Amino acid sequence: MSMVREVVLKRAPTATPVAEDFEVVERAAPTALSGQLLVRSLYQSLDPYVGSRLRGRHMGEPAPAPGDSLPGFSVGEVLASGDPAFAVGDRVVGEMGWTEVGVMASAETRRVSGDLPAAAHLGVLGMPGLTAWAGVTQLAKVGAGDIFSVDAAAGPVGGTAGQIARILGARTVGLAGGPEKCAVLTDIYGFDAAVDYRQPDWIQTFARETAPGSTVHFENVGLSILMPAMQRLQTYGRVVLCGMAEHYHAEAPPAQMPVGMVIGKRAAMLGLVVYDFYPRWSEWVELARPWIAEGKLVSVDDVSEGVESAPEQFARLMRGENRGKALVRMSDAG
Amino acid sequence: MSMVREVVLKRAPTATPVAEDFEVVERAAPTALSGQLLVRSLYQSLDPYVGSRLRGRHMGEPAPAPGDSLPGFSVGEVLASGDPAFAVGDRVVGEMGWTEVGVMASAETRRVSGDLPAAAHLGVLGMPGLTAWAGVTQLAKVGAGDIFSVDAAAGPVGGTAGQIARILGARTVGLAGGPEKCAVLTDIYGFDAAVDYRQPDWIQTFARETAPGSTVHFENVGLSILMPAMQRLQTYGRVVLCGMAEHYHAEAPPAQMPVGMVIGKRAAMLGLVVYDFYPRWSEWVELARPWIAEGKLVSVDDVSEGVESAPEQFARLMRGENRGKALVRMSDAG
Repeated sequence: MSMVREVVLKRAPTATPVAEDFEVVERAAPTALSGQLLVRSLYQSLDPYVGSRLRGRHMGEPAPAPGDSLPGFSVGEVLASGDPAFAVGDRVVGEMGWTEVGVMASAETRRVSGDLPAAAHLGVLGMPGLTAWAGVTQLAKVGAGDIFSVDAAAGPVGGTAGQIARILGARTVGLAGGPEKCAVLTDIYGFDAAVDYRQPDWIQTFARETAPGSTVHFENVGLSILMPAMQRLQTYGRVVLCGMAEHYHAEAPPAQMPVGMVIGKRAAMLGLVVYDFYPRWSEWVELARPWIAEGKLVSVDDVSEGVESAPEQFARLMRGENRGKALVRMSDAG
Repeated sequence: MSMVREVVLKRAPTATPVAEDFEVVERAAPTALSGQLLVRSLYQSLDPYVGSRLRGRHMGEPAPAPGDSLPGFSVGEVLASGDPAFAVGDRVVGEMGWTEVGVMASAETRRVSGDLPAAAHLGVLGMPGLTAWAGVTQLAKVGAGDIFSVDAAAGPVGGTAGQIARILGARTVGLAGGPEKCAVLTDIYGFDAAVDYRQPDWIQTFARETAPGSTVHFENVGLSILMPAMQRLQTYGRVVLCGMAEHYHAEAPPAQMPVGMVIGKRAAMLGLVVYDFYPRWSEWVELARPWIAEGKLVSVDDVSEGVESAPEQFARLMRGENRGKALVRMSDAG
């Protein structure tokens, strides 16, 4: 009987998750029943929202218990199919835990084309990219003439959001922490300007680069960026509320924002939940495909090697040390 | 030399304004210079925002000092014109203080037709009505199939908002305090349902009447209504943030709302400032004119008699005792 390795939760984190909160276990390879697909993983996606999921603070979903599998998309190849709609060898994206080989429910699995890099289906074309597309095009409806600001802009959501906004004709200003990440914004993603929020005068820099004010702000971090960004928003600006990462682990009370500021700015505050856009995933993939082919839309991946590397790779993500989309290469074939 | 009477601020209120914060003074009648109109007032509008203006908490505008004139629109007739665009006898709406006869800047004065009741130009066609129109039609874009909830619904903003939403095809649910105001909602304004927020089980009643949830909520009061209303909003609901009346006088910190709730509801929170819509006032008047003629859009006015009555009439408004649009009849000709 062949064995496979999977990362599971070892203990429930009480603060920011660390590598020791996880462990690698070895299991007998599962089999695919009817309606299931046996999948060999090429890449495992590691995502910031898992940090809040582990503490039971994400969308009301229950926290995993010790020994449980972990959430996140995998891209892989079908080894055995219990659904006639899928064939052995198909490339698929779905959830099966952070495992080398696992089982996906075929009804919740997407087949993806093999002509794009496998890893892209977890980043720029994956949930982060879909999130960026939904916020930029469906909620904020960014277009020519907009001044678009986004934080956590070196990450896959913010970086993709900025690139989409740029392609659609906006001036783009990205916020990131440190000169290395800021260089990614301007040199790789093609932002018009990068602002390092670790600099003491970052608010002045941000105000200058977004002058006379952002018309759209895309928020991934929390109040420490959102409040200064709101103060510099143009009247009738749109604000996409996508993530509050700095509040997910904090012991502090949840993020609160002053209603008077929303009124004073005539702002439109737009809550974004990417799950709603899963049925429209192919719309984003088809829009992005020529942009990727032309080199207009790029991705930066931060890849660790092998299932054993996943706990520390996730801890790096939690510490904000990742440089681009956090992935684990699960097998050589990717 | 003829004398006129005007209400001015006597002392700066430190809490909810009372009648004793004002006094009636007698002055020589002013004259109109070039670019000015001498106007005899028919009705003076008294508005809730003045409560926050007096404490310097409205849109950054300075608080009036003792002896100063007071803000608010008057409808009146031109006695003398310093602008060839206006003739003696024209009916006009503008600001000149709470005075029997005063001076309006012609550039900031609107001529209105004489075929509608003078008082309507301060209520349903005035700033409250324009506010309601902007929120319902320009921000929330209410239409058939919407479930529309609004608070302070017996007041001129909420009452007009509910009527516009009803005319546009929405189910309308109004919140008001006490059975008398609630009867106005259903019996006069034609709301589908009224909810008395002074009843201990009002949240259950509200949930039942808006089931399966409001698609649009129009907020005039503050967190005590907004938070329960948000919890019962449908996903992708729109919330017009129009006023936070309960926070204007409170010593408590300004209204704060949880960002996580906005995200979880995928809500669009839309800040409304009526000033922005002043250039489009005639659009609202022309839309409303046939509705008024057909009896579909009605107004309830709470009128006191004579300039001396203004301080107590304003104090009643501040205590929430008004029944409809708070007005002062300033002369017999209205």
